[in-house]
Amino acid sequence: MASTGYAHHFSDGNVPFGIASSKIYAKPQAATRLGDDVVFLDSLASRGLFSSVHGLPSDVFQHDTLNEFAKLPRAIHSAVRETIRKVFREGGMNAFGSHGVERADQVTMYLPVHTGDFTDFSCSLAHVQNAGRIITGKEGAPPSFYHFPVGYQGRASSIVVSGTDVERPKGQYRARGATTENGVVCGPSVALDYELEFAAIIGKPLPMRQRLTAVDAAEHIFGFVLLNDWSARDIQAFEMVPLGPLNGKNFGTTISPWIITPDALEPFKTSGPVQATDTPAHLEASDTPTYSIDLEVEILSNGTSTVTCESKLHTLYWTVPQMIAHLVTGGCGLRTGDIVATGTVSGFEKGTHGCLLETTEGGKIPLQLTDGTTRTYLQDEDVVIMTAMAGGKSSGVGFGECAGKILASKPAM
Amino acid sequence: MASTGYAHHFSDGNVPFGIASSKIYAKPQAATRLGDDVVFLDSLASRGLFSSVHGLPSDVFQHDTLNEFAKLPRAIHSAVRETIRKVFREGGMNAFGSHGVERADQVTMYLPVHTGDFTDFSCSLAHVQNAGRIITGKEGAPPSFYHFPVGYQGRASSIVVSGTDVERPKGQYRARGATTENGVVCGPSVALDYELEFAAIIGKPLPMRQRLTAVDAAEHIFGFVLLNDWSARDIQAFEMVPLGPLNGKNFGTTISPWIITPDALEPFKTSGPVQATDTPAHLEASDTPTYSIDLEVEILSNGTSTVTCESKLHTLYWTVPQMIAHLVTGGCGLRTGDIVATGTVSGFEKGTHGCLLETTEGGKIPLQLTDGTTRTYLQDEDVVIMTAMAGGKSSGVGFGECAGKILASKPAM
Repeated sequence: MASTGYAHHFSDGNVPFGIASSKIYAKPQAATRLGDDVVFLDSLASRGLFSSVHGLPSDVFQHDTLNEFAKLPRAIHSAVRETIRKVFREGGMNAFGSHGVERADQVTMYLPVHTGDFTDFSCSLAHVQNAGRIITGKEGAPPSFYHFPVGYQGRASSIVVSGTDVERPKGQYRARGATTENGVVCGPSVALDYELEFAAIIGKPLPMRQRLTAVDAAEHIFGFVLLNDWSARDIQAFEMVPLGPLNGKNFGTTISPWIITPDALEPFKTSGPVQATDTPAHLEASDTPTYSIDLEVEILSNGTSTVTCESKLHTLYWTVPQMIAHLVTGGCGLRTGDIVATGTVSGFEKGTHGCLLETTEGGKIPLQLTDGTTRTYLQDEDVVIMTAMAGGKSSGVGFGECAGKILASKPAM
Repeated sequence: MASTGYAHHFSDGNVPFGIASSKIYAKPQAATRLGDDVVFLDSLASRGLFSSVHGLPSDVFQHDTLNEFAKLPRAIHSAVRETIRKVFREGGMNAFGSHGVERADQVTMYLPVHTGDFTDFSCSLAHVQNAGRIITGKEGAPPSFYHFPVGYQGRASSIVVSGTDVERPKGQYRARGATTENGVVCGPSVALDYELEFAAIIGKPLPMRQRLTAVDAAEHIFGFVLLNDWSARDIQAFEMVPLGPLNGKNFGTTISPWIITPDALEPFKTSGPVQATDTPAHLEASDTPTYSIDLEVEILSNGTSTVTCESKLHTLYWTVPQMIAHLVTGGCGLRTGDIVATGTVSGFEKGTHGCLLETTEGGKIPLQLTDGTTRTYLQDEDVVIMTAMAGGKSSGVGFGECAGKILASKPAM
């Protein structure tokens, strides 16, 4: 996967963590990124760079996932990141020596963590109101929307890293306009959509039956990625009463490869919307800020880019720590590498909708692309690219890209 | 966990697989059960008992899960099971020698597999009609019920083995009788229920984008267990529009420890209900039989047992291979150890309902227990025990038990 072109996302204010390989570093292993360079962390560790970081296992950067590192206390993540920043600020890339550094376009990126459970919430008031109106014709949010973050459990084995192709799913759905049983067809989805999402990766695990307040939940966040919750709207619409989405969403979920740390986002903390006053104590939002992050979706069609959405993370009604605290209210645990996603990040205005369901009013209003074609939903060979920057374009702290190309369904079922 | 009392479930017609330890075999490892004896399989393997089984790795029974064994071709599972049966039939327990055999009450059982993804379907027409009528007041099945098995994704990290206590979950729900926003409370569930289910454990994995017919899906089943999908009806009812259940079910799911093989159930194959004629080709039921299995639930209250449900697996509208084939229709994969469950196995008649929601009509008609107490939903300290026998009480092929005790919610959130 070519991953150049995002040098301005990876200043020394960022210093994310990911899993990479190259011709020289053939085994996938822990890395960070500075500008257009990828730095392999075990190479730094073996030269003693992190010797002052108390509690860091000597082999922690040799694994093919970040789970062993992510499960450590946040103070260790901070110390590793600060050490890298200090060396870079004092000597630039040369300070890392002649080993362990590769150009970003020479590396392959992998899933950064092994994920046990993936939970996807639906925290955008604009999205739930838009989607509800388009699908059911009714105004308003779901009954429990203002009481807690509403969510569902996704399929962990379908999580893929940015750059992985996604095949158009098949399934059963009501043909457009059909209202009778006879209108149900089985075949490739004709309403394939993206969903622009933000997601937390769990670091420190939580045993079952422990529960958390939203304030305490922050300690369990290793970092953040962008997430595309690909959705087949036709399959989803037919299946989701009463148990929610399954096959409409379980065929692929793409995440960006670099995990951006809470430390990197600290300067961009801000407040979300004012919440209903009857939020239970463990979900109280005080001291659980969100971040000022601008998100963007573009569709590449015939090699031409069209920006289809620009939205803002802090418009979400619930914060990520609130989602995590709600998730464990019943007594379930958290494992390192678990993913907790926000749901589609949409605003109310035109151009801020994080999925085509909203953008095209359920396929009724085609979207004009810059190559002269139109879309209701995604076509085969379309590439969807999601990006995000914290605190504006010149902040130096971005997420790189979360990209995927749609392949045609294979002919045989 | 005491696991005696089920000797008649484990004749040499059964020969299940599980993970056990004892004082002598301190490390959890693969085992089978014959009557009231547990046989550690690595002990047999190290004495060359399976030397004629081509393709069986020498260390396959040393792991603390069965995943390495389960992922092998079904023919290898069959050959191992047949070898054990042959030795036992020719020489009884003495034929296994002086090593590797322990009394069942001397062993501890563990989760038999590591589970990546847990998908729970809802395949009982009686259950969906009963539950729908009780919750929504409307008659009939969900819109897609007759087209494919409807399901949701459960939380893998909350799966626990029989004998593990389950703490009453907390959450937000509408207080009984409340119809306004002000009626929402946050606290321990007052409608804690069990759900009697049957589940398949995936053996041979399936890569993403491969898809399966129901006929081919059978090759991917390593075996079957009983499953209790504990459900907090109040939390579930408030959260499940529109994304389905999350916290109402993610606090604990209990499975029985012994995986019963398709070979053991082969003599008990039977047909399910006749299905709608418009089932798509890949879900066609021909050659995807179900099994004649009698399931039972009892509640232990103050040490006294009350049987609360007797139901039959073959009354389910969809078969397990159909569930698996539907699950992968969109293109998701299967991993060894994945769990695919049937949903509540309920009949239409009184005494055949697999959960208290149905049995008590949503808590309206209390159930009389033999100790003189009544239940609408479960009370703290109640023990729920699920058992099942294939082909009647004297078949020699049963599932042992799937049991769990309810603990009170811990005071602090």
